[in-house]
Amino acid sequence: MKLQLAIDLLDQKEAAKLAQEVEEFIDIVEIGTPIVINEGLSAVEYMSKTVNNTQVLADLKIMDAADYEVSQAVKFGADIVTILGVAEDASIKAAVDEARKHGKQLLVDMIAVQDLEKRAKDLDDLGADYIAVHTGYDLQAEGQSPLESLRKVKSVISNSKVAVAGGIKPDTIKDIVAENPDLIIVGGGITNADDPVEAAKQCRAAIEGK
Amino acid sequence: MKLQLAIDLLDQKEAAKLAQEVEEFIDIVEIGTPIVINEGLSAVEYMSKTVNNTQVLADLKIMDAADYEVSQAVKFGADIVTILGVAEDASIKAAVDEARKHGKQLLVDMIAVQDLEKRAKDLDDLGADYIAVHTGYDLQAEGQSPLESLRKVKSVISNSKVAVAGGIKPDTIKDIVAENPDLIIVGGGITNADDPVEAAKQCRAAIEGK
Repeated sequence: MKLQLAIDLLDQKEAAKLAQEVEEFIDIVEIGTPIVINEGLSAVEYMSKTVNNTQVLADLKIMDAADYEVSQAVKFGADIVTILGVAEDASIKAAVDEARKHGKQLLVDMIAVQDLEKRAKDLDDLGADYIAVHTGYDLQAEGQSPLESLRKVKSVISNSKVAVAGGIKPDTIKDIVAENPDLIIVGGGITNADDPVEAAKQCRAAIEGK
Repeated sequence: MKLQLAIDLLDQKEAAKLAQEVEEFIDIVEIGTPIVINEGLSAVEYMSKTVNNTQVLADLKIMDAADYEVSQAVKFGADIVTILGVAEDASIKAAVDEARKHGKQLLVDMIAVQDLEKRAKDLDDLGADYIAVHTGYDLQAEGQSPLESLRKVKSVISNSKVAVAGGIKPDTIKDIVAENPDLIIVGGGITNADDPVEAAKQCRAAIEGK
């Protein structure tokens, strides 16, 4: 089980500084969509030059021009790139092919996918490296959590790994760990904590069953 | 009927230069998703400071954190911001509210929406300023065009304006004009033309029925 830190609301220098501080506790660091929109792929490049043994995920949420966007993210240092599960199959296929060409990975974000089981099966067949159930900010505000979605997706896939994101915090991560996903993504639960290093340490301990 | 120039594959300075050259023929200039991903919102800001009487559209293709993303785009000079039609209703509502708060407009991109009529009705009710049928690059490669989709959406909406995008060129724009959409979006048909100014002039003439 891997731990990913998602950073959404810092600038690229603050993000890199935070990643350095918690690097011993995480496997993957994510440059979130808001940072990409604010600053572009230079934020991914800066992060990739800052961290040492941590993979960098570029949360592009690709919807079109998939091969071009994957190739750009990889050019700027991304190890993993995201595409939306609601994208057309043609886009998913192009993204999978482009990522493989570079020896990189594709994470499919299931945000707003209506029929989770059906789409997860499709994406498993299409070669997604990760399928990520994700309760976005706008639905977290309505009180939703990704736990039930995680169970649904896990039950139908056989090749892809499963990831989970959406409001996970040090005091709730154990419920997620109990479902045994391949990757747990924590954002504000670490970045907004009074002590982000301590929060990352607690998340690490939880996924190691401590 | 308005004409929008979508610029996807130039850098922000080249994009601003092109916009200046064709400004007399267009109503709206779009900073496309690839430019936003590559360079961030500074590209929107640079464009908004370059053009005079032309509206600037920021093609963010928002999927989450909708109020934050709309507010950021507006802060950097966008007059119109895009959100995906496949996004959750909670995100659409938040984006509509945020755009209205600033006196700006929201364009909903219908790319990859499976049930166009049903979703267009929803979005019409939710207060979208524009509903844009859009055959993306990855489906244009499969030979699809947005003409039939345009007819479907036009037939069901009553409040929103309808826009159309996807592979439209000076020699095909008349078929689109004949359907009388409110906004026609041309990208590569102008930017990749041997003479982009002449191509923009031809598109303008077509929408004025000349």
